[in-house]
Amino acid sequence: MSLVFSINKEFVKQEDAKVHVTDLGLRRGYAAFDFMRLHKGIPLFIEDHLDRFENSIALMDLELPITRAELKAHVLELIACNKQETAGLQLYLTAGEASDGVTVDKPNLLILQVPLPYYGPELYEHGGKLISHEYLRDLPEAKSTNYFRALRLAKKIKAAGATDVLYKLNGQILETSRSNIFFVMPDGSVKTAKENILNGVSRRNLVRILPKHLNFEETNISEDILEQASEAFISSTVRAVMPITFVDNKAIGNGKVGPEVSKIRKIFDNHINDYVAANG
Amino acid sequence: MSLVFSINKEFVKQEDAKVHVTDLGLRRGYAAFDFMRLHKGIPLFIEDHLDRFENSIALMDLELPITRAELKAHVLELIACNKQETAGLQLYLTAGEASDGVTVDKPNLLILQVPLPYYGPELYEHGGKLISHEYLRDLPEAKSTNYFRALRLAKKIKAAGATDVLYKLNGQILETSRSNIFFVMPDGSVKTAKENILNGVSRRNLVRILPKHLNFEETNISEDILEQASEAFISSTVRAVMPITFVDNKAIGNGKVGPEVSKIRKIFDNHINDYVAANG
Repeated sequence: MSLVFSINKEFVKQEDAKVHVTDLGLRRGYAAFDFMRLHKGIPLFIEDHLDRFENSIALMDLELPITRAELKAHVLELIACNKQETAGLQLYLTAGEASDGVTVDKPNLLILQVPLPYYGPELYEHGGKLISHEYLRDLPEAKSTNYFRALRLAKKIKAAGATDVLYKLNGQILETSRSNIFFVMPDGSVKTAKENILNGVSRRNLVRILPKHLNFEETNISEDILEQASEAFISSTVRAVMPITFVDNKAIGNGKVGPEVSKIRKIFDNHINDYVAANG
Repeated sequence: MSLVFSINKEFVKQEDAKVHVTDLGLRRGYAAFDFMRLHKGIPLFIEDHLDRFENSIALMDLELPITRAELKAHVLELIACNKQETAGLQLYLTAGEASDGVTVDKPNLLILQVPLPYYGPELYEHGGKLISHEYLRDLPEAKSTNYFRALRLAKKIKAAGATDVLYKLNGQILETSRSNIFFVMPDGSVKTAKENILNGVSRRNLVRILPKHLNFEETNISEDILEQASEAFISSTVRAVMPITFVDNKAIGNGKVGPEVSKIRKIFDNHINDYVAANG
């Protein structure tokens, strides 16, 4: 059955959801973006996502054409129309059409309900692999459609049997192209990068809950951590908490999924269940 | 009167020229791009533009879905349909729709005939101003829709009364967001950056013709040149040869449009006229 998408607050059939070719989101790669997960019919951490979307929009000098409350109500209405339990919700504010090709006039607000990308159990049982790459995203604090480098690297990532690329800069570990990274140290403490990263919504929630369970630190992370850490994982809306056991063919710790990451996965799953129970 | 655009080799009315919202050109900012100028009904330097478009496509790991000869014939057919003497022709090869959001499957080829941006005589009489900014474009040798940094800076450029932003990196002068830059030295020789730039089509043509008239060099250019040069200009499809008299409020030479740039403007105008005469 065809879903409905939203274009500037109008519901349209999925197959009819189009934008004019002169939209600067397409012509100039300029659009704020967010991605929510619909789980058991509930948009997980929707307030965090809307906070971040508003922040990305402000950082990109765009303007949300409706109020935050209207946007939230509209997202919920779209979810109700589509009657799905599990899905991804993509929010875009494109730079819209501009006669001179650079000056933003009237942004376009798009909301798409899409299948959730699937990551098989293999990656959770044995851990994923990353390849590292020297790169700082442009305006990393904003979530945008600027995935130029990630798409350029897509074939290389696949060829290496990796699940994503780990961006690093001048000896500092930052984030992957679509997730945040965390390291478990031999003493059981957990560290994640603090600067020059997207503050992911899963990361935000982990920052809230992990300190209740373990020693947790947001800090600058040197590359040496790849030798020192005993376990590692990435967090994202789609992957939740996913163990990482190899970076560039070098094992993290003993190269197996460890007990601390397994514990953190459960903590995060419980947090999601609590959210669903409280917001259902 | 409404123009026609082309989507995957089908002519559609301008107002109906749309792409689906799931196109990765929009969702991931991944599309090769080119921009030609239609002058007296002739697409100037079309072979250079198609060379560059093919090169950008290859560098971005995309694949042109038709032959070069078919693309050229199709562009000429579009021009004939639209019956305009003067226009811009935008060519895009977007990454198309991809179920997993990263792997390119079937690119979309778009051709748009658009009004040529207008730069008034003031900029040619008194010279334009640039603001400088530390930045290396991602994959600078390819022309793509990745203008993320340029759009972020659009308000700052306008507020400074500048016509564009000059990208520099580690003390080296590179290019502006949409043109190449050239400096005239006190001895009358001309220099332009050699690496980490887009090899613009106007630049290619200047590289061909300038050595017949003056001492010309493609080389790495240190920032000191802003103090040393007596004149400067930028080149692009839309601006042709445009004098630059100020960078960050500091005058180049005496801050006035000089005789060498005026001479080079005429040389390039004659080159365009020769092209039109030979290809009309």
